[in-house]
Amino acid sequence: MDINILLFNNFETLDIFGPVEVLARVPDYVIKYYSIDGGIITSAQNLRVETKALNEACKSGILFIPGGMGTRKLVEDESFLKSLKSAAKQSGYCLSICTGSALFAKCGVLNFKKATSNKKAFDWVQSLESSVKWIKKARWVSDGKFYTSSGVSAGIDMALGFVCDRFSRQTALKIAEDIEYLWNSDSSNDIFAR
Amino acid sequence: MDINILLFNNFETLDIFGPVEVLARVPDYVIKYYSIDGGIITSAQNLRVETKALNEACKSGILFIPGGMGTRKLVEDESFLKSLKSAAKQSGYCLSICTGSALFAKCGVLNFKKATSNKKAFDWVQSLESSVKWIKKARWVSDGKFYTSSGVSAGIDMALGFVCDRFSRQTALKIAEDIEYLWNSDSSNDIFAR
Repeated sequence: MDINILLFNNFETLDIFGPVEVLARVPDYVIKYYSIDGGIITSAQNLRVETKALNEACKSGILFIPGGMGTRKLVEDESFLKSLKSAAKQSGYCLSICTGSALFAKCGVLNFKKATSNKKAFDWVQSLESSVKWIKKARWVSDGKFYTSSGVSAGIDMALGFVCDRFSRQTALKIAEDIEYLWNSDSSNDIFAR
Repeated sequence: MDINILLFNNFETLDIFGPVEVLARVPDYVIKYYSIDGGIITSAQNLRVETKALNEACKSGILFIPGGMGTRKLVEDESFLKSLKSAAKQSGYCLSICTGSALFAKCGVLNFKKATSNKKAFDWVQSLESSVKWIKKARWVSDGKFYTSSGVSAGIDMALGFVCDRFSRQTALKIAEDIEYLWNSDSSNDIFAR
């Protein structure tokens, strides 16, 4: 199963590479890096990553998007949102970290679903689509095939939660142990929601 | 101040991008990505990153190296170790994550210093240089200008510890809050050392 990571300029680096560390340890998963047009994508932390064009991706894979300041432009980019909506509809699962949920919300695929986002940008994200059932106190939220996480580091907890749901709690705990990560396995235990 | 990240093929992705998320939030720091010869470097998780050649780096910056399976070859690579030793000697601080400490140890710059490494590879790392004072129970260890961390995720705790030492505890706590990360700020509180 392909994990199709969709990158864009000014994405937040750890949003992706925390979960990547978890998901790459699942033998069934292969991590692939895409952007809408392919080529080099630059993160908010100056990282320049090689990507392939999204239309080369296996459509039924797991779609995974980061957040970051790059989302501020993209919520107004009709062409991007159309491609994202099409990819999300065809993907087996859709995961977002941080303000990545703003992009899913804005293209309409989260309508009437539960979701969460970064605390620092919560009001902005919430304002984009009021039909989404936004939940502020959550490390992550799952609703059907959609998994959305809170800010940056919460993505690691969510990735382990996703592995737990798809495989087993034991598999998730083994990965957490191997990467020496203390997993907050209770998605509702969110000390950053104040 | 430049944070000079030295990458090599088969590096462990999160080793670098956890700490990068922390260090990039320090206004004084600029993150730069290098490899010995420059060009595209591929991580153990299929990530292809653009780098510049190490000889273009500001010599007095902060040197930062990941671990990962790529270190297994590099501990036998005399040319790499010579370049690393030279860079480490000139750098203001030297940070390693996970088995990155194997590389610092092997090039001799950790002799008679305290250091730590990944739990899963501890015996191997320890066997490389017996004059290093290896400490198994530690999220991270600092000795003079050298900071070494345990496995993968421990690098995030260490990066926050480094910021705490250079700036203030308040600065580190603010960054942890912004990235919604529960910082284990006690370097000796290591539940993975059993």
